[in-house]
Amino acid sequence: MSARILVVDDQAANVRLLEARLQAEYFEVCTATNGADAIAVAKAEQPDLILLDVMMPVMDGYDTCSRIKDDPATRHIPVVMVTALDQREDRIRGLEAGADDFLTKPIDDVSMFARIRSLLRLKEVLDELRYRESSSALAGISGDVQDDIDAPARVVVVSADPRATCRFAAALPSKAEILETHDPAEAIIAARNDADLLIVDLTSPGYDGLRLCARIRSDAATRQLPILAVVRPADVQQAVRALDLGVNDIIQRPVDAGELAARSRTQLRRKRYADQLRSHLDEGMEMAVTDALTGLHNRRYISSRLRQAMDSASNGGAPVSLLLADIDHFKHINDTYGHDAGDRVLRDFSSRLQTGLRALDLAARYGGEEFVVVMPGAGLAEARIAAERLRSSIDGSGFDLSDGTSVPVTVSIGIAQAHRGEALDALLRRADEALYAAKTAGRNQVQAADNAAA
Amino acid sequence: MSARILVVDDQAANVRLLEARLQAEYFEVCTATNGADAIAVAKAEQPDLILLDVMMPVMDGYDTCSRIKDDPATRHIPVVMVTALDQREDRIRGLEAGADDFLTKPIDDVSMFARIRSLLRLKEVLDELRYRESSSALAGISGDVQDDIDAPARVVVVSADPRATCRFAAALPSKAEILETHDPAEAIIAARNDADLLIVDLTSPGYDGLRLCARIRSDAATRQLPILAVVRPADVQQAVRALDLGVNDIIQRPVDAGELAARSRTQLRRKRYADQLRSHLDEGMEMAVTDALTGLHNRRYISSRLRQAMDSASNGGAPVSLLLADIDHFKHINDTYGHDAGDRVLRDFSSRLQTGLRALDLAARYGGEEFVVVMPGAGLAEARIAAERLRSSIDGSGFDLSDGTSVPVTVSIGIAQAHRGEALDALLRRADEALYAAKTAGRNQVQAADNAAA
Repeated sequence: MSARILVVDDQAANVRLLEARLQAEYFEVCTATNGADAIAVAKAEQPDLILLDVMMPVMDGYDTCSRIKDDPATRHIPVVMVTALDQREDRIRGLEAGADDFLTKPIDDVSMFARIRSLLRLKEVLDELRYRESSSALAGISGDVQDDIDAPARVVVVSADPRATCRFAAALPSKAEILETHDPAEAIIAARNDADLLIVDLTSPGYDGLRLCARIRSDAATRQLPILAVVRPADVQQAVRALDLGVNDIIQRPVDAGELAARSRTQLRRKRYADQLRSHLDEGMEMAVTDALTGLHNRRYISSRLRQAMDSASNGGAPVSLLLADIDHFKHINDTYGHDAGDRVLRDFSSRLQTGLRALDLAARYGGEEFVVVMPGAGLAEARIAAERLRSSIDGSGFDLSDGTSVPVTVSIGIAQAHRGEALDALLRRADEALYAAKTAGRNQVQAADNAAA
Repeated sequence: MSARILVVDDQAANVRLLEARLQAEYFEVCTATNGADAIAVAKAEQPDLILLDVMMPVMDGYDTCSRIKDDPATRHIPVVMVTALDQREDRIRGLEAGADDFLTKPIDDVSMFARIRSLLRLKEVLDELRYRESSSALAGISGDVQDDIDAPARVVVVSADPRATCRFAAALPSKAEILETHDPAEAIIAARNDADLLIVDLTSPGYDGLRLCARIRSDAATRQLPILAVVRPADVQQAVRALDLGVNDIIQRPVDAGELAARSRTQLRRKRYADQLRSHLDEGMEMAVTDALTGLHNRRYISSRLRQAMDSASNGGAPVSLLLADIDHFKHINDTYGHDAGDRVLRDFSSRLQTGLRALDLAARYGGEEFVVVMPGAGLAEARIAAERLRSSIDGSGFDLSDGTSVPVTVSIGIAQAHRGEALDALLRRADEALYAAKTAGRNQVQAADNAAA
């Protein structure tokens, strides 16, 4: 997969060298020679990855990285910091500034391209979700994805070395719930059980750590789980293999507690971000078919489901009947007790409505004070029983307002059974006529539409 | 990236051999020894890819592939057919059965793993979209993604060889609009212009075809565009490089017209599928904030936007005012002329409402016959002007029903300007009180809430 990479270094020669190596592998390259430019280019050009030199005058790499990661417009772009020395303090400082990884000068091609490919692959799926969310009007109302560093996390640590396990666990955030094991089968079960991070020691004897990583990635239930692999020092091949299998990050033995802590935090933060993006999208989809006030399905949803049930009935399937219920004198409730009281009545009405239904039945708020129940498999006789049960549950006891007042409420209901081949609108019209008959006959009653086929 | 692969072959020895090679590369493997089993395993285990032998007794590979591709539960799984001979007819027959690619026995590892990686990467993003869509209640109402083979398509063909271009173009579907070029810059412009497929001749002199593919993949606007690359025969390295860069499919010189047609159709079909998934999701997100009847924003959306505008006003930003409009005697319209007429009035009311607004203003159906307009930057005086304009546009001419009848409609409006630090509910309550005052004072008028801070 090709991608656009921003190379940042104050030494023009370094920029040109890295640019040539990246272009030879068919990457597109854009460049900057100081921190301020890097931030501007990242924002304007939205590269897929940033290779950022640490040692720069005026604004150094840490500061530049922090600013890129603080800005919602560039936060999602992976940053790989390039350091002259392989210093523990530099790595931790960089990770704390939000860097996704490090490369030490001189950079070897194998490590660099394995890292780049791995980060780009992870970014690809997130980009798709991010784009769907940000392009929608919903983005404005669900707000920015928030990061909560103190959120509890479930971490699975796999190692056959008890001292290592103990040291890894000690480095993790205090709120983390940690499960330690040296058994891959147990690790898979734990991973499937809502884990947030898997730390796999690939240097440990007694099990095949890469195989475990592959299993986790092959299983749809754990495909998205971040994996941090502990690798042998100077074993580039093992590190590259792990990254190619889909491991999210690697850390070398001997494991530095501060570095493990920083890398774990990065992985947990990224997972929370992805989880929130997914749940925003899922909520959006849910909202599309839900009435916000009552939590019932909405008109859009019920119309489509009713059409499906009618098609099935017309094709020789089970019959389908419909209830159309309208709260009597609802406007009077609103006008007398206010909109809040009216909303409360609508919500209470909805819960009484749902209580009396079979699991198969589908209830929806059709608009205003009007509700629809679709009863697949039910004939007119069963619809009448359900409608009468609803009518009496509404009439049976008053509706409590927030000030303790109890208001009597009644409902009028029209019922109709779909004819073979009848159009949706025709069925709804017949139910509406029956409802109108119930209203004119004095309300608080059930009337059935004429069952003779048109 | 690891994944689960289903290996199907009636010869147990072939299954074991392929299984061992895949496992050595850390893939998870499941197996089947006949077509019926393959279909059952594909459905139950949902592998990420299927390697399917063509020559099998009872149900052969073509038939098995067709059935897998006809079933919505397995349609999305890439199928690579394994043939004993490299026969043109076999390839075309397989592609027409829905196969995504071919491998010829004996299979060489480099080609196989490049192909597998490429197909898995493409599947990864689609899976994410598919999962979001299928897990939502919306899936039931948007229905299956439909394939329309005859849909028009825009195809960009890049080659410096005019005879080749001409032959490629002749093989494409008759409804395709074809743009031919030998200039990469022109190809990029055409690709960005809603192209559905890019065919790049990598054997052509005069331009760097791989570089063009990389550019297309690096550009967010064309990242999803399918690329079919024409490669030199027996040049495995070129083919692998192209696939690694993100090319979707490859075809060898000399290009067989039937094979090019079949491979193009496969790419176009996959793109339509992905496009439809994306638009289903986008529509879902849009529906979540839209009132289905009027097309205005809904209460959920306007509440959130009002809160943002009020926060900004409280933090020293521009003022914000609110209109709360309620159609007079709407129930009477519904009861007299029926629900269809009522819906028509609501829709017409919405369009008159929007006509009179500034681009900044946000209008929403708040529920039933009640509408809200949020006016950022507007004080009470401007809100009064807008409200009066709306009132007179409603009162000014009757509302036409479908039978030609014209019904007079009026509206009562309450307006309020947000106080610094005022809660959303408090502002809405003040607007509601003003609306109530307009109703009790005889309707068809505008009343303003008391502007003194509470």
